[in-house]
Amino acid sequence: MTLDDLLQGTGEWLRGEGPEVDVVVSTRIRLARNLADFPFPNRASALQRGEIESLLRERILQLADSWQFCYFALHRLPELDRQFLVERQLISREHAHANGQRGVAIGKGEASSIMVNEEDHLRLQVIRSGFQLDDAWHEINRLDDALSERVCYAFSEEFGFLTACPTNVGTGMRASVLLHLPALTLAKQLEKFFRALQKMNLVVRGLYGEGTRASGDFYQISNQVTLGRSEDEILRAIRETVPAIVDYERHAREVLVREMRSALQDRIHRSLGTLRSARMMTSEETLDLLSNVRLGVALQLLDDLTVPRINELLLQTQPAHLQKLVGEEMDTDQQNIVRARYLREQLRHVQLN
Amino acid sequence: MTLDDLLQGTGEWLRGEGPEVDVVVSTRIRLARNLADFPFPNRASALQRGEIESLLRERILQLADSWQFCYFALHRLPELDRQFLVERQLISREHAHANGQRGVAIGKGEASSIMVNEEDHLRLQVIRSGFQLDDAWHEINRLDDALSERVCYAFSEEFGFLTACPTNVGTGMRASVLLHLPALTLAKQLEKFFRALQKMNLVVRGLYGEGTRASGDFYQISNQVTLGRSEDEILRAIRETVPAIVDYERHAREVLVREMRSALQDRIHRSLGTLRSARMMTSEETLDLLSNVRLGVALQLLDDLTVPRINELLLQTQPAHLQKLVGEEMDTDQQNIVRARYLREQLRHVQLN
Repeated sequence: MTLDDLLQGTGEWLRGEGPEVDVVVSTRIRLARNLADFPFPNRASALQRGEIESLLRERILQLADSWQFCYFALHRLPELDRQFLVERQLISREHAHANGQRGVAIGKGEASSIMVNEEDHLRLQVIRSGFQLDDAWHEINRLDDALSERVCYAFSEEFGFLTACPTNVGTGMRASVLLHLPALTLAKQLEKFFRALQKMNLVVRGLYGEGTRASGDFYQISNQVTLGRSEDEILRAIRETVPAIVDYERHAREVLVREMRSALQDRIHRSLGTLRSARMMTSEETLDLLSNVRLGVALQLLDDLTVPRINELLLQTQPAHLQKLVGEEMDTDQQNIVRARYLREQLRHVQLN
Repeated sequence: MTLDDLLQGTGEWLRGEGPEVDVVVSTRIRLARNLADFPFPNRASALQRGEIESLLRERILQLADSWQFCYFALHRLPELDRQFLVERQLISREHAHANGQRGVAIGKGEASSIMVNEEDHLRLQVIRSGFQLDDAWHEINRLDDALSERVCYAFSEEFGFLTACPTNVGTGMRASVLLHLPALTLAKQLEKFFRALQKMNLVVRGLYGEGTRASGDFYQISNQVTLGRSEDEILRAIRETVPAIVDYERHAREVLVREMRSALQDRIHRSLGTLRSARMMTSEETLDLLSNVRLGVALQLLDDLTVPRINELLLQTQPAHLQKLVGEEMDTDQQNIVRARYLREQLRHVQLN
């Protein structure tokens, strides 16, 4: 598999199917793990980091067929390819921009991945389209078990799994759910939710993790604390919270349709109209406009589009994806022109009802 | 002729042909005249106003065939029809909202009109598409002469024509040119022009006269002073000033095309895209968007539309026109929905290049 093979699809993350997919884009669990016999990456020498990477690469590729991991040495990939992997949520921005020997293993359908030598030696990730927390948990547990048979994890009876940063010690687990909350955003009801979530030790972030703004009304909710709570407790908090948010978002959408139908139609169609006619467009504006269109599809106000199709446009118009599609590196101005042209071509034949 | 006969066309004002029509929408001259034997309308009793109106109506309808005046008694027209005449620039807002016996005579093709019992007994108007100052002057002079053979004007050897408000005494003339200046607006170069115009005793107003904002980058330039200057001097000031502004606007457009082609294309196509997709639209937004589209047509960046077609949309989407087209009175929200639908239908088949 090459990165170009990934380019045409959206992967598991944006498959656009699964439970509650009108509101829940995807469910993701990651586990931070380290090798007992090596210093953490930030303490390891270049030589040691090299040893760690070689070892883990070999062990990961030994894993049974069901994952079908494909391994990429990030330090050998050009910047554009690393950015491409960030946009697909397969590696973190930090992992893309770091130095030294490091890699990522990408499983079948991009449903699982393992970062090597990120902040920790190992960052296991399983992602599912829609709200599939238990399925993701079952899968990552299986991956964790398989891996633990091949390497020796740094583990303390007192603290649990040891990690480079104390905020991950314990379970090393972060479970997160990516939500699309346009109606709650429009109704300006998010603030109170986010305050309530904070009290439950859940954090809200933007689409691309820490410090990113909530582009296109997409929000990631994940657990804050990894220590002093079992995996089950963490999962339970998410499992109990998300359905409530989904209900509130759906209710807010119903209210919008009932009480502001014309204004809503207007917003959705203007967004589509702009996507179909602009000559220059940033990726931020694309996200915002596609978010409105996605709401229109979810509310069956637009016939000729589907959530998977919108997800595809959302991903393909990200900067690195766009440049890989076109086959050349471009500056931001050129990207904005090419992005607008791509969107016009892709949306030209959508029937407006 | 009924008002509904007017509804389908745009009249002379927006015919979209004539000299410099890429920048000069229309040229208009009006003359304020009063009868010697009656008090000004604001001093006249209801009875006298009635007498004045009857007299002038009769004399106007006696005028030779070439004008083919059709007379409407405004005090008998519903509010919507009066608003309709304001939107067509055939009567002033003040004339529409006034009380008492008053009327308007509308000549062939709406190229000439006479308000009766507005601020003055008579307000003669001749309008021409594009920049046709001399033609308009010739025509209104002819109308003035013809009328002066049938009524006795209030005239003083010392002051000239006497008018209800001292600002119109003398020639009683206001010559005005309606300009479309999107490029100078974009380039933020209008302020300095307007200051220069002020020094030449020329005034700048919005599309619908005094106190209206310059919607859609349309500006009216007219003479401030009527006293102490001959008609020739007033006309000369306009005749010498307008070509310079036209040149500056054209130059600003060339600069835009040369230096900001992508941004300009983007702006024009987004405007068209919004006009083709919105579900609610105010008349102000319609003007602004059509202004951008008009610029695109003038610069040959849009193939499938013409200036006359845009002028038609501009007029038909005004509130009273829209209600008359639909055949019922509507509140603003309903108008915004119907306006957006009308624009979508009218622009559906425009090919985007």
